[in-house]
Amino acid sequence: MKTIGVFDSGFGGLTVLRELLPLIPDARYVYLGDTARLPYGSKSHETIARYAISSARFLADQGSDLLVIACNTATALALEEIREALPLPVIGVVEPGAQAALAIASAGPSTIAKSHVLVLATAATTQSGAYTRTLNGLGLRATEKACPLLVPLVEEDWLHQPAHSSVTLEVLRIYLLEALEQAPDANILLLGCTHYPLLRPLIETTLKNLHHPMHIIDSAAATAHKVVTLIPDAGPVSTTAPECTFYATDSIEKFQRLGSTFLRKALPEVKLVDLGG
Amino acid sequence: MKTIGVFDSGFGGLTVLRELLPLIPDARYVYLGDTARLPYGSKSHETIARYAISSARFLADQGSDLLVIACNTATALALEEIREALPLPVIGVVEPGAQAALAIASAGPSTIAKSHVLVLATAATTQSGAYTRTLNGLGLRATEKACPLLVPLVEEDWLHQPAHSSVTLEVLRIYLLEALEQAPDANILLLGCTHYPLLRPLIETTLKNLHHPMHIIDSAAATAHKVVTLIPDAGPVSTTAPECTFYATDSIEKFQRLGSTFLRKALPEVKLVDLGG
Repeated sequence: MKTIGVFDSGFGGLTVLRELLPLIPDARYVYLGDTARLPYGSKSHETIARYAISSARFLADQGSDLLVIACNTATALALEEIREALPLPVIGVVEPGAQAALAIASAGPSTIAKSHVLVLATAATTQSGAYTRTLNGLGLRATEKACPLLVPLVEEDWLHQPAHSSVTLEVLRIYLLEALEQAPDANILLLGCTHYPLLRPLIETTLKNLHHPMHIIDSAAATAHKVVTLIPDAGPVSTTAPECTFYATDSIEKFQRLGSTFLRKALPEVKLVDLGG
Repeated sequence: MKTIGVFDSGFGGLTVLRELLPLIPDARYVYLGDTARLPYGSKSHETIARYAISSARFLADQGSDLLVIACNTATALALEEIREALPLPVIGVVEPGAQAALAIASAGPSTIAKSHVLVLATAATTQSGAYTRTLNGLGLRATEKACPLLVPLVEEDWLHQPAHSSVTLEVLRIYLLEALEQAPDANILLLGCTHYPLLRPLIETTLKNLHHPMHIIDSAAATAHKVVTLIPDAGPVSTTAPECTFYATDSIEKFQRLGSTFLRKALPEVKLVDLGG
C-alpha cells in the first residue's frame, strides 16, 4: 500500500485530499498544513520556497512514496526546487489544472485558438506567471488575476449567512469585472487556489449576474485525477476507509474546526509539529 | 542618545513609530516587521509567543535601550513572556490604550461607571481577553469584538477607491452591528490593532450611519505618549531627522511599498533578516 503525502500552507489542500480519497481508497495519506507560517500567497519567492521545502521534507520523512503539493502558491513558486530537494515523485496543481483547461478547450465548440483562460489566484501565484507559462505552452491564451481577499473570506466562512455572502459576492463581482476588462473574451475560469472550490456556488452566481458564462475548472479535482495515473495499483477498492494522518504547525484545535469545512467531514486527531520559525 | 526598538508582526507598528518620531526626535529607532511569519492575529498563543520573543531578542541585539511591542496581538498574548526573556524595559500597546480609555471616561460627561469600552481587534487578541482584564482592572466595562477581515482590507488598500471602500464600509457595518448588539451602551471605541488607525475615517462614517456616536481611541498614539514618559531626556528637539533602521523578515520591496502607507512617508533602505522558520 502506497503512502501519499499531501502538503498545503493551510487547509486548502484538504480540497485535493477530499478528491483523492474516493479515487484511491487503498492508500495511506499523510497531510501537512503549515498553519504557523500561512498564508504563503502574500509572501516572497525565497520565503515560500524555504517553507515549502522544509514542509515537503517532513512529509518525505513520514514515509511518503509520492508527494502532492496541494497548494497553488507553493507549486507556482517552488515546484522545481522541491523536486530537486527530494528523491521521490512530486505532483503540483498547476500542470493538472492547465491540462484540464486544455481538455475543455479541445472538447467544446470553441477551438483551442479561440479559448482564453482566466486564472484566479493569490498575489504570489499570479506574480510568478506559472499558469500563464504553462497554459501558453499548451497553446492557450491566459490572463491571471490576483484575488487576495478571497482566502480570508473563505477562512472566515463569509459564504453562507446572507449579510456575509453578499459582501463576498460584491468582492467577487469587483475582481471578475476588473479581470474581464483585461480579458473580455475569457471563456474558461481556472480556480488557481485550493480555497476557491468553496466559493464555486458564489462564483457561478456572480458570472450569471454579469451575463458572462464560463467553464469553471477546479485544479483540486484535476490534480487528484493526475495522481491516479501515477498509482497503477490504486484498486481494487478497499472495504476499509483510507488511513489519514494529519499534521499542523499551529493550533490543532483550529485545524480540526476549519479543516472539516474543507474536507466536508470531521477530522480525526491532528498532530502538532514544529518545523522551526 | 537612546535607541528605541519597535516591533510588529508586519506594517501596523509603523503607525506607532509615526507617532513616536515627532514626540522623541532625539533617538535612534530600529524597527522590525516579522513579515515572513505574519499575520499573528489568527495564530495560537504558543506560536505567537515563540515568534514575538525571537523578534524582540533580535531588536535587543541591535542595541535597543527600550522596546515597544507595537502589535496588539503580541502584546496581548506574550508581553509578560517577552519581559521575562529580555533584560530591558518593554512597553506594550494594551495598557496605554486602556489608560487612554480611562482618561476619556473620567473627563467626559459620562462617569467611569457609565462608560463601556468596545474593543475591535484580531481573533487572537480578543481570545486572550487581555483588553477586558486591563479595562476591568481600571473599573471600566469592556466588550471585545474580533474583526479578522479588517487587516486584509487595509493591506489591500480597499479604503479609498469608491467600489472598494464601499465593501470595507459594509464589513465595518456588519462587525459594528454585531458588536453593538452585545454592547448597546458602548460609548468608547478602542482600536485594538495597529492596522485600524488607517480605517478611522471609514469607522467614523459607519458610526454616523448607525447613529451611534463614540469616542475613538487609537492605542498607537496612546503608546507613543507612554514612551515619552520613560525617556526623560527626550528633548531638546534635534535639528536633524531621527535615525531609523528598518528590518523585515520577508520581501523588502513589499515592506517599502506598503510601509510608506502606514508611516505616511517614504521608507529608506529596508534590510532583510532571517529569524529562522
